[in-house]
Amino acid sequence: MRPFLSHPFDDDKLKEECGIFGVIGVTDAANFVALGLHALQHRGQEAGGIVSHHPEHGFNSARRFGYVRDNFTNADVMETLPGPLAIGHVRYSTAGSKGATAIRDVQPFFGEFSMGGAAIAHNGNLTNAAALRRELIERGSIFQSSSDSECIIHLMARSIQKNISERIKDALRRVEGAFSVVAMTRTKLIGVRDPLGVRPLVLGRISDTAWALSSETCGLDIIGAEFIREIEPGEMVVIEDGKVTSTRPFAPAKSRFCIFEHVYFSRPDSILGGRSVYETRRQIGVELAREAPVEADLVCPVPDSGTPAAIGYSQESGIPYAMGIIRNQYMGRTFIEPTESIRNMGVRLKLNVNRALIKGKRVILVDDSVVRGTTSRKIKDMILEAGAAEVHFRIASPPTAWPCFYGVDTPERSKLLAANMSEDEMRDWIGVNSLRFITLDGLYRAAGEAQGRDNASPQYCDACFSGQYPVAPSDKIEQGFEMLKAAQ
Amino acid sequence: MRPFLSHPFDDDKLKEECGIFGVIGVTDAANFVALGLHALQHRGQEAGGIVSHHPEHGFNSARRFGYVRDNFTNADVMETLPGPLAIGHVRYSTAGSKGATAIRDVQPFFGEFSMGGAAIAHNGNLTNAAALRRELIERGSIFQSSSDSECIIHLMARSIQKNISERIKDALRRVEGAFSVVAMTRTKLIGVRDPLGVRPLVLGRISDTAWALSSETCGLDIIGAEFIREIEPGEMVVIEDGKVTSTRPFAPAKSRFCIFEHVYFSRPDSILGGRSVYETRRQIGVELAREAPVEADLVCPVPDSGTPAAIGYSQESGIPYAMGIIRNQYMGRTFIEPTESIRNMGVRLKLNVNRALIKGKRVILVDDSVVRGTTSRKIKDMILEAGAAEVHFRIASPPTAWPCFYGVDTPERSKLLAANMSEDEMRDWIGVNSLRFITLDGLYRAAGEAQGRDNASPQYCDACFSGQYPVAPSDKIEQGFEMLKAAQ
Amino acid sequence: MRPFLSHPFDDDKLKEECGIFGVIGVTDAANFVALGLHALQHRGQEAGGIVSHHPEHGFNSARRFGYVRDNFTNADVMETLPGPLAIGHVRYSTAGSKGATAIRDVQPFFGEFSMGGAAIAHNGNLTNAAALRRELIERGSIFQSSSDSECIIHLMARSIQKNISERIKDALRRVEGAFSVVAMTRTKLIGVRDPLGVRPLVLGRISDTAWALSSETCGLDIIGAEFIREIEPGEMVVIEDGKVTSTRPFAPAKSRFCIFEHVYFSRPDSILGGRSVYETRRQIGVELAREAPVEADLVCPVPDSGTPAAIGYSQESGIPYAMGIIRNQYMGRTFIEPTESIRNMGVRLKLNVNRALIKGKRVILVDDSVVRGTTSRKIKDMILEAGAAEVHFRIASPPTAWPCFYGVDTPERSKLLAANMSEDEMRDWIGVNSLRFITLDGLYRAAGEAQGRDNASPQYCDACFSGQYPVAPSDKIEQGFEMLKAAQ
Amino acid sequence: MRPFLSHPFDDDKLKEECGIFGVIGVTDAANFVALGLHALQHRGQEAGGIVSHHPEHGFNSARRFGYVRDNFTNADVMETLPGPLAIGHVRYSTAGSKGATAIRDVQPFFGEFSMGGAAIAHNGNLTNAAALRRELIERGSIFQSSSDSECIIHLMARSIQKNISERIKDALRRVEGAFSVVAMTRTKLIGVRDPLGVRPLVLGRISDTAWALSSETCGLDIIGAEFIREIEPGEMVVIEDGKVTSTRPFAPAKSRFCIFEHVYFSRPDSILGGRSVYETRRQIGVELAREAPVEADLVCPVPDSGTPAAIGYSQESGIPYAMGIIRNQYMGRTFIEPTESIRNMGVRLKLNVNRALIKGKRVILVDDSVVRGTTSRKIKDMILEAGAAEVHFRIASPPTAWPCFYGVDTPERSKLLAANMSEDEMRDWIGVNSLRFITLDGLYRAAGEAQGRDNASPQYCDACFSGQYPVAPSDKIEQGFEMLKAAQ
Repeated sequence: MRPFLSHPFDDDKLKEECGIFGVIGVTDAANFVALGLHALQHRGQEAGGIVSHHPEHGFNSARRFGYVRDNFTNADVMETLPGPLAIGHVRYSTAGSKGATAIRDVQPFFGEFSMGGAAIAHNGNLTNAAALRRELIERGSIFQSSSDSECIIHLMARSIQKNISERIKDALRRVEGAFSVVAMTRTKLIGVRDPLGVRPLVLGRISDTAWALSSETCGLDIIGAEFIREIEPGEMVVIEDGKVTSTRPFAPAKSRFCIFEHVYFSRPDSILGGRSVYETRRQIGVELAREAPVEADLVCPVPDSGTPAAIGYSQESGIPYAMGIIRNQYMGRTFIEPTESIRNMGVRLKLNVNRALIKGKRVILVDDSVVRGTTSRKIKDMILEAGAAEVHFRIASPPTAWPCFYGVDTPERSKLLAANMSEDEMRDWIGVNSLRFITLDGLYRAAGEAQGRDNASPQYCDACFSGQYPVAPSDKIEQGFEMLKAAQ
Repeated sequence: MRPFLSHPFDDDKLKEECGIFGVIGVTDAANFVALGLHALQHRGQEAGGIVSHHPEHGFNSARRFGYVRDNFTNADVMETLPGPLAIGHVRYSTAGSKGATAIRDVQPFFGEFSMGGAAIAHNGNLTNAAALRRELIERGSIFQSSSDSECIIHLMARSIQKNISERIKDALRRVEGAFSVVAMTRTKLIGVRDPLGVRPLVLGRISDTAWALSSETCGLDIIGAEFIREIEPGEMVVIEDGKVTSTRPFAPAKSRFCIFEHVYFSRPDSILGGRSVYETRRQIGVELAREAPVEADLVCPVPDSGTPAAIGYSQESGIPYAMGIIRNQYMGRTFIEPTESIRNMGVRLKLNVNRALIKGKRVILVDDSVVRGTTSRKIKDMILEAGAAEVHFRIASPPTAWPCFYGVDTPERSKLLAANMSEDEMRDWIGVNSLRFITLDGLYRAAGEAQGRDNASPQYCDACFSGQYPVAPSDKIEQGFEMLKAAQ
Repeated sequence: MRPFLSHPFDDDKLKEECGIFGVIGVTDAANFVALGLHALQHRGQEAGGIVSHHPEHGFNSARRFGYVRDNFTNADVMETLPGPLAIGHVRYSTAGSKGATAIRDVQPFFGEFSMGGAAIAHNGNLTNAAALRRELIERGSIFQSSSDSECIIHLMARSIQKNISERIKDALRRVEGAFSVVAMTRTKLIGVRDPLGVRPLVLGRISDTAWALSSETCGLDIIGAEFIREIEPGEMVVIEDGKVTSTRPFAPAKSRFCIFEHVYFSRPDSILGGRSVYETRRQIGVELAREAPVEADLVCPVPDSGTPAAIGYSQESGIPYAMGIIRNQYMGRTFIEPTESIRNMGVRLKLNVNRALIKGKRVILVDDSVVRGTTSRKIKDMILEAGAAEVHFRIASPPTAWPCFYGVDTPERSKLLAANMSEDEMRDWIGVNSLRFITLDGLYRAAGEAQGRDNASPQYCDACFSGQYPVAPSDKIEQGFEMLKAAQ
Repeated sequence: MRPFLSHPFDDDKLKEECGIFGVIGVTDAANFVALGLHALQHRGQEAGGIVSHHPEHGFNSARRFGYVRDNFTNADVMETLPGPLAIGHVRYSTAGSKGATAIRDVQPFFGEFSMGGAAIAHNGNLTNAAALRRELIERGSIFQSSSDSECIIHLMARSIQKNISERIKDALRRVEGAFSVVAMTRTKLIGVRDPLGVRPLVLGRISDTAWALSSETCGLDIIGAEFIREIEPGEMVVIEDGKVTSTRPFAPAKSRFCIFEHVYFSRPDSILGGRSVYETRRQIGVELAREAPVEADLVCPVPDSGTPAAIGYSQESGIPYAMGIIRNQYMGRTFIEPTESIRNMGVRLKLNVNRALIKGKRVILVDDSVVRGTTSRKIKDMILEAGAAEVHFRIASPPTAWPCFYGVDTPERSKLLAANMSEDEMRDWIGVNSLRFITLDGLYRAAGEAQGRDNASPQYCDACFSGQYPVAPSDKIEQGFEMLKAAQ
């Protein structure tokens, strides 16, 4: 029996991380958007959607489960998306939401207003969506998805502004939380970041009259666009007739960009805040080697996300870097378990230890983060079975002890290992010779803040590590969540 | 290149004919609905949908393109539709609308209101939908489909009534045209017919506490339910806790049931207005034999819809009934045409002449109707090629000269053969020895009106034959349609 | 758990009925074959295959499960089948054989010989296939299918003849049983019927230089080919360069065409032995009315196969013909059974009684045959539930008491109702007021033998009724089958 | 128009590389085989097949296009493969062979002999297959696939030996070329390597009575089996009733294992000839740094295959290792090219330069091999566009100048860049500052031969580099291929 959805439009798994992309001014904007979304696929693998507009054929859309490469490479699909203006969205896979009706949750969302249609794609999470949704339903709006982002299009529909750009401002002034938005009307491509700039959004130039908006710079690279600049926190850009105009619809606020984008989420070849993500991660390894040195024979990454920090650790410590764990390129989770018990089969489908290399060695394993800790235990088992003499874990982020409410899918606080154990307890529970996390200050230094974290006014959103939430998660508080400390 | 939709939610092909079904009071209502929709498949083959409600699992829905038997027989699908209450809809195939987004047009439609959710399935067509839609959009409603029927659920969302049944009344009092509606809340199954009762809807009893609503009685037969009675024109029934209560939300009006349901649309084993549809059709053949006799050797139906009238014609005339044309049970339209030209291949995929029988004979062909006339010409060609001595067409309906705006998909008036030619001109154009249609009076007599049509106050809606529209098609008039005569 | 095949190439369900078709001399022979197979789809619905040959592209093949219309209408498939010469096959669905490997059983079979390739399609059943297969395996042949027909191609591969036509003769002289075969080399289309001519095969002319071979004449009609003549029992025709040459590879024998083709299997618009199949079936009804009259109000066919005999019965008896049972055009078997028990749901998915017509009437039901009898009981139940006063069954074939070993899939003798009961016992077991089968003599008269059956030397194969097998089923006898009487 | 296959069983693309796996002695051997094939997926991605045997259910098979994880994780499929004995095969994708009939080419192949059935899976390539096939066809064998490997099963079918193990020996003594074979009867699992041992095959122990055979040791790791030893060149092992017996069916010969398995084909976590593949590759980088040093700022691998050698180069040279090129995890080839020309889009779908890192730097790129050289040019373009100051290519294998006829798919000699240019010419054609390949001696040293290559009697097959073919490719010579030097 498959799990039931309580009802198709009411699912509380709203915490997806996403990628957004938009293009204006080329003959076939949807093809550019497909490429851009392909480059952003790491931000969301469950599903993707594209809406395009053509002067004769109007708005068209296609929304599909699965990878961009499988859905938006087909001429049959792409021919239904003509025109010089298009936006798109990729969405993260949340357990259980894939089904007959969940295609409704795939963005972009479209609304037809009396002055014409508009589509929006949203990356982030709204912290007052439940309250807004309740209010909108009471006033007669009919929601078609379970997504918080749909509130934005309903707020736009009910705005009394005559102009769609103004309606977007009206709508976004009502929402709270983290949002980077790409939107389109029949003639305009629009990009907005929330006042704190929690999620990224960048502007690229394809030609003198053609432009692109992308969650990350790697999306610009794939279409050969020049990276111009980041959209700033609290900024709204409107691109029409080849011109980019900028306004500031919100009250000014201090930037609080998500530091986890540096640690894990963004692609290593993207540039965030003027820095190579790869370089920041390598530098995290350098900081870790300084903060938590240990004698060993090899430094091995847990592939692939631990690789840059492992390289940095090796370079700083002088201990040789090696591929001690090999990742299976053809992963899959759902093999039938052989009846003769195989220990750790789940892990073996994805990883294998380089036995001949590891045997008898003292191994430093560099991983990006520890969430529930269960994977770390399995990896430790594999390494020991292969004959390692010692295992030392070094983690390229501080202990993750708080859930994110701004667009990263995290387990409840009770399931986070670091919310329940000290570093030493975690070491013993995982069963390794040593376990060390980078400090919050070390992380800030690696991210370019030479003085470390400004505790009075932190330079980043680091709520998942610190419990300090820059925007109060009001829906969650209503549901009983206890915040460590109010927004600063 | 595939045709573009002007935009995914704005398609003016709203003239589909549909079938609707609902069940309350059994353990697994969706399975009953699947069976009922299977029996009603002739009313809509493009797509189908079911919404169910379960006290624990809430509302669930599944909507699919294709036949009921292919989609709603799968345990994986049906297990997602638990509960004692379900409604469903099958929809007619309109050219070009099958695509990535058109699944949005598949009913039932669902809306979440502050007092709970509701789903509706609609058979018929609203004649003021364009005006309503315009108004609702201006007030901030966001339409998700191109279907007129969606207006009903938005009108419900905006009603100030506290009770969903009252909201349905509110909504249906605002719409004009033809509608039979099956709706559901968490606890109620609701059925409504418009004041003129243009489209059918019947009530059946499954057990003392379980009930069904169906477009036709054949939907009751398949689930073993007892046919109790028709829902009356202008009546609303609400079934809850095993009890059926009836109200009359609309101003009283004289019934104008669609006479074309008798001629063609309903299944021959259904009972309409207390009469067997098969018997009415056989009687049409009897009337035709009286009105338009001719000397001949064989009476052959154009299969399968012409069969009952051909039987009647044979019985009244004494001319032997024979299967002169054989239908291929495994039809298909899209065979690649062999390069050596084969005349009439399209027709041959579906029909073949019983050559050894037809050769040298004078043949009377009985068909249900003539719309564009092109099929009639091809059939005549096949019969003559097989060596028939004479071909006489007898048509079991009057000339179709006007479009239907109440839920039957008809071509524009300019494409209707009978709108442009006299009976003699049609005979010559088709190229047969004689061509005769049943008269409007003859049709009424066959339908049980012994005195024929009451021209002062017709007993049926016969606008497609007479041009007399019982409800003014206001959207169409706004677009320039010229009606023969105002509503009576 | 799905049933296991004992192994993929060893399944004893070899008794499928099939349809075969071949074309030579047109630009795109495979398209003609696809149309011909579509017209022959009633002879086999499980799967179909086409092999074509093109001077440049050589032999190509496509074999698929499902209807011809679903598989061989696709340009992607048909473009892989170029050339002026093609043959095809449709195959009957036998339970359990559809799976990963069973596509190997789909004909035509292809073999590459040292002098070039050949493909064959076989309709019928070989009665010494098990012995031949055993011998061939011992000599080193590797079978790829579970089909008896594959023996023919292995016998061809091992023939010492230099010419493929001669190899076919060699091979067919080794096999026993019933076979109509269509074969092709790079330049020749070949047709053969076994010495008794048990299965049909006809020749048609497309143009002066293009020809077709088809199981039935309806396959010629769909491609606009002229029916020239039947291939005679024991005849082999070779068509090359637009010329048809005929030889007689076998010892002469008296024709024993399958009388069941007249009763049930062939299409009513086909011509067999110079007679319209429809007319033979109507005449069966006439004979039945003479042999087994009864007082009643209506004559109703069990649709659709009983229709022609019901028409004949009505015409001879003067009792009105009526559609008392309506068949669902959108059949399906696998609906989930609602938990509230619905009696006879299986039957209701396909058939519904025309209640308003049947109520209170004495009804004669005309059916084509009785095999296990279970369907007859269910139909009787439906008719009585609908209120019929009396039910009289009239069967358009004699009691089926013996299995067929010549290409019709029949249950074991122990499961055949007529093998275990007298006519009166069957009447009581089914539960009807009367039950009568046509006599064997009556059937022969309807089929044009004015003097009835020549018991000394029957004009047809009627083993399924008489137990007199014209070819001893040697494999089955080896397995223990007891024949009533040796071959005549 | 899709390309035509000349005919479905005659395709000369026989040069696939494959992976093979077998298990005996567990309850559900097919599940183990599925896991093993998953670990060997890098050896063949086009298709896979498994045959199992169960005492009651006999032989069963499933063969599918696509990844193991997509096909052999499904309970519906795996339940059809019961039993304690199973073998499997994965196959490399060769252009154009994927189609309706090519599933016939997917191994294992099965044959039914008079003493029972047997299945075989073959990795390698037979150099006299064309001649054998011709002979077998003349003697009456019918080939069902275009695969050379099918010869083996036909040779077995025609052997006069009574025992299947003996028939395998008979068959393998007739074939020439490279072969590692896994075979099974109803009770035995059999493994064989050709006399030179060109392709790998290893033995693993699951339990005291359960055993596995795998192309590489990584296949043993995933099922938790202990790596016992390699099957030796010219050895045949037969495993039955938990016992392993070894025989030597062929004349003794000196081992000539494929050195390219070390360079590229095998997984880095496998152990070949007692050495970690990863360590050999890292050592190649060390040798390269010694043979071909250059001043630079960064050593970057072309991901992922160049990674181990790049690590070695960095460690030996002291130049920092860095991820200068990032690989897209969600690759895809078939994106629609935007109409505004994007240069090098094909490469960008898979790779992106880490721009912020590369800008202004002198970069050493380490790649595994150069075949046609076109990819190298595109990568160089990307690196220079990103602002690199210098680009130096270092290649972890000698120039590939000769085709492989032993199971690796290589282009014709005329398309191999190194067959037509000197190292300097290649450097200029690719357009880089320097280009150096490892020497053949350097490669042998890295592979553990301290003295380098023994030119009188080479320790490995290195025909692709040296043109010295250890087995004369007789079919190819018959077709006109000119070998540099006869087999040694």
